[in-house]
Amino acid sequence: MMAGSSALHPDHRIGVVQIGLGPIGQGIVRRVLEMPGVRLVGAVDPAPDKAGQDVGSLVGRARVGVEVQPRLDPDAVAGASVALHSTGSHLEAVMDQLLALVEAGLSVISTCEELAWPWHHHPGPAQRLDRAARRAGVTVLGTGVNPGFVMDLLPLVMTGVCTRVEHVHARRVVDASRRRGPLQRKIGSGLAPDEFDRLVAEGRLGHVGLPESAALVAAGMGWRVDRIDNVVRPLIASRPIETPHLSVRAGQVQGLLQTVTAWQGDRERVRLDLVMALDPPASEDAPTAGGARGVDHLRITGEPPLEVVVPGGIFGDTATVAAVTNAIPRVMEAPPGLLSVKDLAAPGWWSGAAW
Amino acid sequence: MMAGSSALHPDHRIGVVQIGLGPIGQGIVRRVLEMPGVRLVGAVDPAPDKAGQDVGSLVGRARVGVEVQPRLDPDAVAGASVALHSTGSHLEAVMDQLLALVEAGLSVISTCEELAWPWHHHPGPAQRLDRAARRAGVTVLGTGVNPGFVMDLLPLVMTGVCTRVEHVHARRVVDASRRRGPLQRKIGSGLAPDEFDRLVAEGRLGHVGLPESAALVAAGMGWRVDRIDNVVRPLIASRPIETPHLSVRAGQVQGLLQTVTAWQGDRERVRLDLVMALDPPASEDAPTAGGARGVDHLRITGEPPLEVVVPGGIFGDTATVAAVTNAIPRVMEAPPGLLSVKDLAAPGWWSGAAW
Ligand SMILES: NC(=O)c1ccc[n+]([C@@H]2O[C@H](COP(=O)([O-])OP(=O)(O)OC[C@H]3O[C@@H](n4cnc5c(N)ncnc54)[C@H](OP(=O)(O)O)[C@@H]3O)[C@@H](O)[C@H]2O)c1
Ligand SMILES: NC(=O)c1ccc[n+]([C@@H]2O[C@H](COP(=O)([O-])OP(=O)(O)OC[C@H]3O[C@@H](n4cnc5c(N)ncnc54)[C@H](OP(=O)(O)O)[C@@H]3O)[C@@H](O)[C@H]2O)c1
Repeated sequence: MMAGSSALHPDHRIGVVQIGLGPIGQGIVRRVLEMPGVRLVGAVDPAPDKAGQDVGSLVGRARVGVEVQPRLDPDAVAGASVALHSTGSHLEAVMDQLLALVEAGLSVISTCEELAWPWHHHPGPAQRLDRAARRAGVTVLGTGVNPGFVMDLLPLVMTGVCTRVEHVHARRVVDASRRRGPLQRKIGSGLAPDEFDRLVAEGRLGHVGLPESAALVAAGMGWRVDRIDNVVRPLIASRPIETPHLSVRAGQVQGLLQTVTAWQGDRERVRLDLVMALDPPASEDAPTAGGARGVDHLRITGEPPLEVVVPGGIFGDTATVAAVTNAIPRVMEAPPGLLSVKDLAAPGWWSGAAW
Repeated sequence: MMAGSSALHPDHRIGVVQIGLGPIGQGIVRRVLEMPGVRLVGAVDPAPDKAGQDVGSLVGRARVGVEVQPRLDPDAVAGASVALHSTGSHLEAVMDQLLALVEAGLSVISTCEELAWPWHHHPGPAQRLDRAARRAGVTVLGTGVNPGFVMDLLPLVMTGVCTRVEHVHARRVVDASRRRGPLQRKIGSGLAPDEFDRLVAEGRLGHVGLPESAALVAAGMGWRVDRIDNVVRPLIASRPIETPHLSVRAGQVQGLLQTVTAWQGDRERVRLDLVMALDPPASEDAPTAGGARGVDHLRITGEPPLEVVVPGGIFGDTATVAAVTNAIPRVMEAPPGLLSVKDLAAPGWWSGAAW
């Protein structure tokens, strides 16, 4: 962390292992293979069509001599320092995976949404992970674009130039029209409104991690949070919408509107509005630019008041791959334990050069 | 830096001393006096109309029982851990002050523009300061809004979600019309164009710290910089402009346009455009919003490409006071040495509560 020097190991590349080879894990592998300072030591995915393949070929690159394993073999990743983990969104579901990595002596950078700030919603697992990581002398971090950057870390960073902060509002509009089919379905497109409501009630619809972002912002501001509300509503199509993956009729769901608010007593401190929809309608609150229908929009109420606009919005998949891989050197230099993005050195692009 | 805990000294406030009581130093003192976790132990300013006064009264607040000293008396600041320093822009001019603070065992957070990233333009003094700080076990940091945030740290933070970065461009437009007289004169308002050019040639006009921001961005990106160019041009008024402080006739200077570029070989890597003028003309490149004539505008060329707009721009004086005071807990937890904003934990508002 010194400006003039650094813990240099010029001859040693950082060994990493990739856990989970869905679209995000594959994107991480592609980036890692371009980084001269990083060596891919192993890759794990249980899917029968992946295990056994060369991971380079699997991600559409040259063979690299690393075979996808169906499960973590600690002996096979002996040279690794960091696990990049992208298998699931729910902390309870990935706890065993995370603990196994930590116990194998690996630091972990994960896209698991609930790991971005688990201290509020999952304090028990957070504490267990923190203890295990300290015992093993490794660092565990949850990151990505959302949670991990645009609705939590970026607003926190902006408040660095405020002498007073009263309220933080982040609004993200994602146009899912040209995105993958699974994403289009994940936001409820094509459902009947009552089916949408039922899935919400069952906890099966809505962006995982948004409440965690709100808790992270509040923690960064030092606000004790008494309640976090999470409301997911359908956005109903007023006309038919066709995508390469599905058709939506007028009256069916075109996407979701999710609002998370964090309260200190009866005072709203954080408000996060997420719109993920096919062809989201333009609105006064969601300025659009350059024809793009997405936007990221932050408003800090305080001194000075601040507004930040990212026209078009930050493209999620690439940004998540970036957030994970750019965090490698920061995690290598971080103290052990379960950390969050706000605890690490300020984020920034890492070229992947030997360091 | 732990998420779940922290180096808590709940009964001990952090002792700080303020060096320099111009407008920025006075603003810092006002903020410090509002922070329950911080105790103002001393204040230094040689000006005859300040030394000897109670520093609370001097800044327009209640008396606090701390008398402004004309010079640093190390014995008088025995209880302090951090010096907040705002006396000058040029590193050579403030080196002795900084070294004296370090040798008194104080960490230093300074608004000295050339200190924000002195490794490129002033490597000798940077190394001396770094060595002295390590020897004394304290941390030295240069920060503020510009340099320190809007044209260096903020673009660096944005690249945290990029897998590739080719070029960084930041453009800041400051409308000086409603600012202090000294600022209006500092940007050349009211000068004849040839007088402006002469002062630029003598190094007496132009925003100090802009080349440092470019060097800091390049360093953050890992780009070896071969050359940093710094061009300051006058913006000529096409009609008379009146402010409470001065009058500008058509044909006289209304402000400055400064462009700093950082080059890797013949490749431009960083471009910083700063417009500081009375009533700056609107232009396509400088979108304005809400009637304000300022803006901060970032463009990252890379993957994904990113654009960030802060309509109205970040108001400089408040933001500088914020950057300095919000850095206190981060500096308390940082390793010793001369650090830069990119080496510290991600910035964010600090309420000033006991920690
Ligand atoms: N924080 C953020 O901003 C952010 C952004 C994007 C994505 N994410 C999250 O990151 C995760 C990955 O994204 P994705 O789109 O790639 O998801 P995905 O399509 O669900 O891929 C997950 C992959 O992990 C595999 N897997 C499951 N359990 C495993 C285990 N125990 N060990 C190794 N691999 C295992 C799955 O195999 P099977 O197919 O055999 O089950 C699948 O191939 C998701 O939870 C997603 O929500 C977060
Ligand atoms: N990084 C940034 O973004 C940023 C933003 C704003 C300001 N700044 C810089 O921060 C500095 C302070 O700003 P300002 O507007 O308050 O400047 P200023 O009006 O020049 O005030 C400086 C004060 O420091 C005093 N001083 C001079 N030498 C001293 C010493 N050895 N010990 C203690 N005090 C001493 C001066 O006293 P005398 O009047 O007796 O000389 C004066 O009162 C400037 O250099 C400014 O350019 C940086």
